[in-house]
Formats: sequence, C-alpha cells, structure tokens
Amino acid sequence: GICYVGSETLWQRTFTSFGVLFLQMGWGDLGAFGEPSKETPNLDQMAAEGMLFLDFYTANPLCSPSRAALLTGRLPVRNGFYTTNAHARNAYTPQDIVGGIQDSELLLPELLKKAGYINKIIGKWHLGHRPQFHPLKHGFDEWFGSPNCHFGPYDNRELPNIPVYRDWEMIGRYYEDFKIDLKTGEANLTQLYLQEALDFISKQQASQQPFFLYWAIDATHAPVYASKQFLGTSQRGLYGDAVREIDDSVGKILRHLQQLGISENTFVFFTSDNGAALISAPKQGGSNGPFLCGKQTTFEGGMREPAIAWWPGHIPAGGVSHQLGNVMDLFTTSLSLAGLQPPSDRQIDGIDLLPVMLQGKLIDRPIFYYRGNEMMAVRVGLYKAHYWTWSNSWEEYGKGTDFCPGQSVSGVTTHTQEEHTYLPLLFHLGRDPGEKFPLSFASEEYQRAMQQITGIVQQHKDTLVPGEPQLNVCDKAIMNWSPPGCEKLGKCLKAPESDPKKCSWPH
Amino acid sequence: GICYVGSETLWQRTFTSFGVLFLQMGWGDLGAFGEPSKETPNLDQMAAEGMLFLDFYTANPLCSPSRAALLTGRLPVRNGFYTTNAHARNAYTPQDIVGGIQDSELLLPELLKKAGYINKIIGKWHLGHRPQFHPLKHGFDEWFGSPNCHFGPYDNRELPNIPVYRDWEMIGRYYEDFKIDLKTGEANLTQLYLQEALDFISKQQASQQPFFLYWAIDATHAPVYASKQFLGTSQRGLYGDAVREIDDSVGKILRHLQQLGISENTFVFFTSDNGAALISAPKQGGSNGPFLCGKQTTFEGGMREPAIAWWPGHIPAGGVSHQLGNVMDLFTTSLSLAGLQPPSDRQIDGIDLLPVMLQGKLIDRPIFYYRGNEMMAVRVGLYKAHYWTWSNSWEEYGKGTDFCPGQSVSGVTTHTQEEHTYLPLLFHLGRDPGEKFPLSFASEEYQRAMQQITGIVQQHKDTLVPGEPQLNVCDKAIMNWSPPGCEKLGKCLKAPESDPKKCSWPH
Repeated sequence: GICYVGSETLWQRTFTSFGVLFLQMGWGDLGAFGEPSKETPNLDQMAAEGMLFLDFYTANPLCSPSRAALLTGRLPVRNGFYTTNAHARNAYTPQDIVGGIQDSELLLPELLKKAGYINKIIGKWHLGHRPQFHPLKHGFDEWFGSPNCHFGPYDNRELPNIPVYRDWEMIGRYYEDFKIDLKTGEANLTQLYLQEALDFISKQQASQQPFFLYWAIDATHAPVYASKQFLGTSQRGLYGDAVREIDDSVGKILRHLQQLGISENTFVFFTSDNGAALISAPKQGGSNGPFLCGKQTTFEGGMREPAIAWWPGHIPAGGVSHQLGNVMDLFTTSLSLAGLQPPSDRQIDGIDLLPVMLQGKLIDRPIFYYRGNEMMAVRVGLYKAHYWTWSNSWEEYGKGTDFCPGQSVSGVTTHTQEEHTYLPLLFHLGRDPGEKFPLSFASEEYQRAMQQITGIVQQHKDTLVPGEPQLNVCDKAIMNWSPPGCEKLGKCLKAPESDPKKCSWPH
Repeated sequence: GICYVGSETLWQRTFTSFGVLFLQMGWGDLGAFGEPSKETPNLDQMAAEGMLFLDFYTANPLCSPSRAALLTGRLPVRNGFYTTNAHARNAYTPQDIVGGIQDSELLLPELLKKAGYINKIIGKWHLGHRPQFHPLKHGFDEWFGSPNCHFGPYDNRELPNIPVYRDWEMIGRYYEDFKIDLKTGEANLTQLYLQEALDFISKQQASQQPFFLYWAIDATHAPVYASKQFLGTSQRGLYGDAVREIDDSVGKILRHLQQLGISENTFVFFTSDNGAALISAPKQGGSNGPFLCGKQTTFEGGMREPAIAWWPGHIPAGGVSHQLGNVMDLFTTSLSLAGLQPPSDRQIDGIDLLPVMLQGKLIDRPIFYYRGNEMMAVRVGLYKAHYWTWSNSWEEYGKGTDFCPGQSVSGVTTHTQEEHTYLPLLFHLGRDPGEKFPLSFASEEYQRAMQQITGIVQQHKDTLVPGEPQLNVCDKAIMNWSPPGCEKLGKCLKAPESDPKKCSWPH
C-alpha cells in the first residue's frame, strides 16, 4: 500500500503530504532492482526522481506483524503481533484470530490526528477484525478495504467470505460483491483502490487539508489478480500482470500529485510487508533477486524489501542509500515530517530517516530479524549473524511447502530449528548477499565482527519488554459472520458457538 | 574487454568508432542489473546514456570459445573452439593446447582491415598462443596483453609463466615482470590496459583513422586483482574492488571519447564472455543475479550476460531491449557499421543489431546453448528447452567443485549427464527466470511451445557442419617456454620433448 501524509512540515509551512506503498512484493520484483523483464517503468521512474534504498527491511517475514510495526514504529514482539504458542512461529490475523491491535498502542494516524491530519486507509488493514480493532477506532478517518486477506473461503457459505468496508460498515464481500475470478485472475480491485486514492487526494488538496494515506493494496498476494486491461500484458504471467497494474497505479498517483501542484509538498514511500512468497512461484510468486529464500523466513529474501522515497524538490533525484532502514522508520519519519515527536513513554524502534534522505547521512543501527517470539538473526553493518536457522519443518516440507525452492544451503536453510546462540553463523552480505558462505568461526574477521554484534544483541535482549501476545487464540465464532452493516445488505451469517483454541502455526 | 570500431559508417560519412567490453562478469554484477551494493556508477551511466540488453547471451559458458565466437560471428562448434574428447565438455586454451584459431576462419579485424581500419587488442587473446595463432596474423595491427589467462603456474620456473606481449614480441611474464600479489590481490594491470586504450584512441583520433579496439581485460577472473587505489574500496571484497576499477576505467574511456569530440562517432558495447564463476565465490566470484548456476553451465547463470550499447546521438538514451542477443552479433553489427557485408561462403550465426538499437526492432531468432560438441539447450522467445542437463560430475562435485553453490533444482542441476532429447525440459523464463519449475509435459503450453522449438532445433542440426575440433590435443612442449622476444630479455626456457596427449576436460 501507499500512505500519504500531508502536514505543515518543519521545512515548508504550506500544505504538504507524504506516503508509503505497502504490499507483498520481493526485493527483486522491480526493474530498478534487476528484475529481468524490467516492466515497472513508473516505479523505476519514481526511483530516478527519488531515492532508492538498497538495504531496507520489513519488521517481520509475514504480513500482519509488519503492518502493525509500520503503524506503531515498534517491533511485533513489543506491540503484541506475535505468538507464544510455539517457539519462533510466524503468525498473522486470519478470520478466526481473537487478538488484534491494542488500545494501549499508539498508531501513526492517532498521533497525526492531533496535528490536524485527515487519515485514510485503502486496502488491507490486517490488525484484527473485531469491533475494538476497527481502523477508525485507531486514528483513521476513512477506510475502503478489507480487514483480512482476500484469500479463502472463496464463496463457501459454510464460512464467511471476507467483508469489504467503507468506513464503519461493510459494503459487500469478496467473491460475492467484489469479484475475483480465480480461474482467469481477473479482478478490478486495484482500479477501485486507485480511484479511491485519487479522489481522496483531490478532496484533501481542494480543502487544503494535510493528510495521511495508507495505500495497502494486495494484488500481488495469492490469489494474485489484475484488471482485464492488464491480463496477459506481462512477460511474467499473472504475477507480472498484477505488478504492471500496481506500477501503472503508482505512476498515476504520482502524476496526480504533480498535476494538483502538491508533489513538492508530498512525501511518498514505496515498500513491502514481506519478501516474495516463493511457495506461490512461479505463477503467483514474485522475486527476491539474488537473496536467499522468501516470505516466512528470516533470510534476506524474507525480509529485505524494495524501497523508494519520493519527494521532488527535497529528496535529490537519483539518490541511492545504503542506510539500514526498516518499515518502522516510516512511523518516526512521518511524525518528524509532521513536526511531532515520537511517544517517549515506550520503546520506539523506528528512526527518523529525514537526515538520510535530505542530507545523505548514514545512521548506525542494527536490524533485528524476528520470527514470532525469537530473534533469529541480527544485521550490523554488512554483517548478519544468525542465532537460529529454520526454513520450515520436515513435516511441512514433506507436504510440498518449500520456502526456498531451488535453494539449499547446508546448515543454513535447515528444516529443524537449529540453535546457534553460542556461536552464531556469520555472513558478510556485501561479498555474499545470498547467505551461502558462513565465515569461519576461527577467523579474525569473525571474532572482530561478533564482538560488536554480541554487545548489541545483549543490550537488545536485556532491555526487551515483550508485549502481550495477540496471536495465540483462535475462535471460529469471531469470524466475519455478521460485520456491521450486514443487515442492510442481507449478508449476516449465523456464527457458531464460541470455542476458543490455541491457533496452530506450523511455520 | 572493450572493442572500439571506427569506420565510415552507413549513417555518417565521417570518422567514427565503436566498441565492446569483454570480460568475466556475471549478469547480476552491475548496479543497473540489480547488484545490491550498486557500485558501478559509470556502467550504470553508460546504460542510462545508451541501451540496456536484458536478454543478451554469450556463445559458450567458457572463455576461449566465446572469444572465438565474438571475433568470427560463428558458434564454437563451427569455428573449431570445442572438443570431441568426451561428450559435452567445456574446453579452452591453456598453455599446453595444441590448437587455436584456424587461418580458414575470417576474423572481424581481418575484414575491417580491408575497409581501412586500424585494429588493436588489449588484454587476453585466448585463441591459441603458437606462432600461427598470433593475433597480428589474424587481422590485428597492435597487441598489448597475454595469449592465455593470467592464472598459474605463479612463478614456478618448472613451468613457464604466461608471457605479456607488445605486438609481435613478449615484453615480460606475469608474476615476474607484471606483478600480481596473490596475497593482497594487488596488480596495476587494469591501469596499464586503460592507458593503452586511451593512448590508442588519442592516436587514431589525431590521425583521423578508423579503428577497432578490442579491450579484453581480465581483472575479475581468478586470481582477481585490483590496483592499490581500489583495494578495499568495495562492499564486495576483492572482486568488488576489481569491478570498481573496471567501472572507473570504462568511465574514463567514455569520457575520453567525449573529450576528443568523437563520442557521437563511436559505438561502444559492454558485455562478458561467460557468467560469473561461482566456484570462486564469495571472494573471487561475481553474481548472476536471479539466475541459476554460473560459468561452465548452460543454465542462465552461465551464459546470460550484462550488455550495454552506447552510441550518443544514435542509440536513444535510456533504452531497454529484450532482443535475444549474442556476442556473435557484434561481429555482424560491426561489419554493418563499417559498411561491410558478412562473408557469404560460410554460416554466420551473428545478426545485425543496428535495427534493434536504432529503430527499436525485435528480430526473431533462437539462442543455442552449447557445451563442447553438444547442444544442451535452446531459447526461443521466452521458452528455454533443455535437451541435456548437467552441472558437473559427482566425482568433481565430491571434490568440492560446485558450479551452483546453494542452488539445487531436482532433475535440473544434475550431476550426471541426463538426456532429454525426446522430451526436453521446458522453462518459461519470464515467469521463472531461475529455471526452477519445468512446465508439465502434458500441458497445452508445453505442446504448443515445443512444436515451434522442435522445428528450429531440427533445422539447426540438419544444417550444422561442425568445424575441426581445435581443443582436443595438449602437449607440454608447446607451452610458452620461449616466446618471440625471450632472447632479448633472457627469459627463454627449455621446452621438454613433444608428448601430445588428449587433453583432459573434466567438466
């Protein structure tokens, strides 16, 4: 998705805006990042007009926790978007999840609201679908989109299809009122999301209202879809068609900002919530370029993301940064743009990237790679130390679930959870971006690098206060049976009796 | 290396020039192709000012045959740069090779000479080192460089070190007179090659002489080296240092052409003779981006190459082409630039790329992937059919020689030579650039694609007249014991008695 934040900024006391694109795409999916079909002219142009981040990360190898991290500026292990049902398990917010974003968490739109912003989310929310988790209860003023992923149960009335909301109420359901043709891959949802974005921007521009737009589209998430006009237009099949439509939409949004004369007051950021889902390849999965494995893993393919910052007249065109960045930084950076300070009563993991983008600074900071309740790895400079390795279990792998298709690095892409906390596996990501050649434990380089890393990890662990885990309990009774507004549409379904259970997270 | 060809072109009847860079680098080694450290600003700029070829191939996964193909416009199986000692074996020109380029082959500089060109080769020749194979006997007017690779025997007087020639005579040997520090990786050879190129260009410009410069540098070939000023400057270690120095040199050459006022009369092409040598990774090996395996293999990583065409004022800036191209096309394209026709008495495999570069045309043509005497695979459009699969033998693999480190695709990266001639393995390189997901044999798509491919392969095989294989016989007696000029330097060594044997080609 994209979020636009408009504000009286510190630099320019006029109407301004900014944004982040947020969706499931891999590091290697853009032409500017070396995708061989090079079919993203608008995103490549966005990079040419803005700044390319080559070392930018998401906060988790899965969607919901990354989105919670983006909006809270905090690691999922702090904001509660993780599970303790088992060790180092990925978890998200399917329809039967009981938990969601807590009132105690301060979300970016809540804070921006105090500075006069109008905030809109378009697309997938994913921070819980029960009434108390509704985005309009957490700072957003408007919503067009869905609380959960658009997959399953695919028009099976035994279980509810995912509702699509406008603001407080549902206006239909996927597969019923919002069609996705699973056979052809046709769906016009990206066009709907695009029109919503253009209209919202026009409205805010007309009223001189600072705004934050979070454009959280999901066409590249399986089941992948594209509008009719884009079907069959890519070298890359349906996935490429979806990428082309997103690329085209981004171009239209940026041109719209330019035509309205607010591009120089608009900060836009494009990035993704996790690496490409290689389990969906080749038909519905993207590319992580030269990196190891994909979504669900803490290897580079799972968490290193395409990232572009765009702010004409402020961010120098054609810039390239090796700043270690994270989606959580967009929280802090957005506050900074709005002239606000991040909350001081809690640990914030995001940093302000404005000095990086405007003055070319490099800020020293680590990247933590979590899987559920476990810190699997850490990156410091060009070194990455794995404290635990795991792709998935032998059992899941045996069923055909492969997070690293065609890739296998002995002792690294392991199918048992392997602990290396006493002697971490160390990689140099400059010489070895694919994490194939661990450094020798006996080398001077290993000793030197680990000395620094050990201190950083120690400090992180010593001061970590984990949040109450939100992704432990599932209950069919709380699925989207009867969302608000269902009566008007005659779309209320009868919920079964409550039967809360521990959610099963196999990965 | 680079070659510059200057000529009275068809378009501009004034002094002109053009060129090709030729060296061992992988598809993914340039920033413009998605290398994560993005340390090739000059090559990226060259691409921005010229045309990027994303689907460009070399003629062989190994050096000598690719270089013979570049200069003859013909597949190695036609020009003799292959072996029949065993099935589907890579072969090149080590010091004890008896064969070399035949007089019956017409080389690009021989043909250009008739049109008044002055031709120079700087760097590695690699088409045989015996007197009859000398580049000045095959059309070149000047030479600074070596007949063989700069590896081994590393100053062991039991075997001769590789000589460095100026024109007809050797002027020293590697490791003796031309130092390469194997411990630090320091060598100033790229600087010597750069100065030679700049001087040659200046001289030709001053005399208004059309010229062809073949700049065949080898700093990224193990043992990788860089000049002192570049050592330690890359995120990627010594390999990256070498890439930076090459990038810097290319920039200096292009700027030199501009400063002399001949850039608009100069066609320059950058490409490589084989994919990155992953056996040398991570310290001395490059990157093949998202592609499978590397040098020595007929997977994309072994033969798909970075490629940039540059000709300011003619080739539109920022162009991108999906034309299936091959190094052999540079033969035909160069002749076309010089207003010459390719020889009509033999099969030429290269095509003229000028319509592609100047008018944006796409020309239908297949790419054949040979390993020695065997056509392993063919690409037609976005489909690639493997008729044989092999990485290397279990025996070599067991010794630690891995052409696909960290990669393993069941039934594809095989360690026995597997024949699929009756039912080729088919990949769609758009959806699956990494060759991980063969199409189902039963699918309609397979049937449709193979119908077309089968006809093309049949026609190719039916009309193929293999050349006399040049890489079958090895003899220690013909090593560089006493190259011309050795007497003056006191560097003649005594050759052993002749003992010709079948060369051993394990891969």
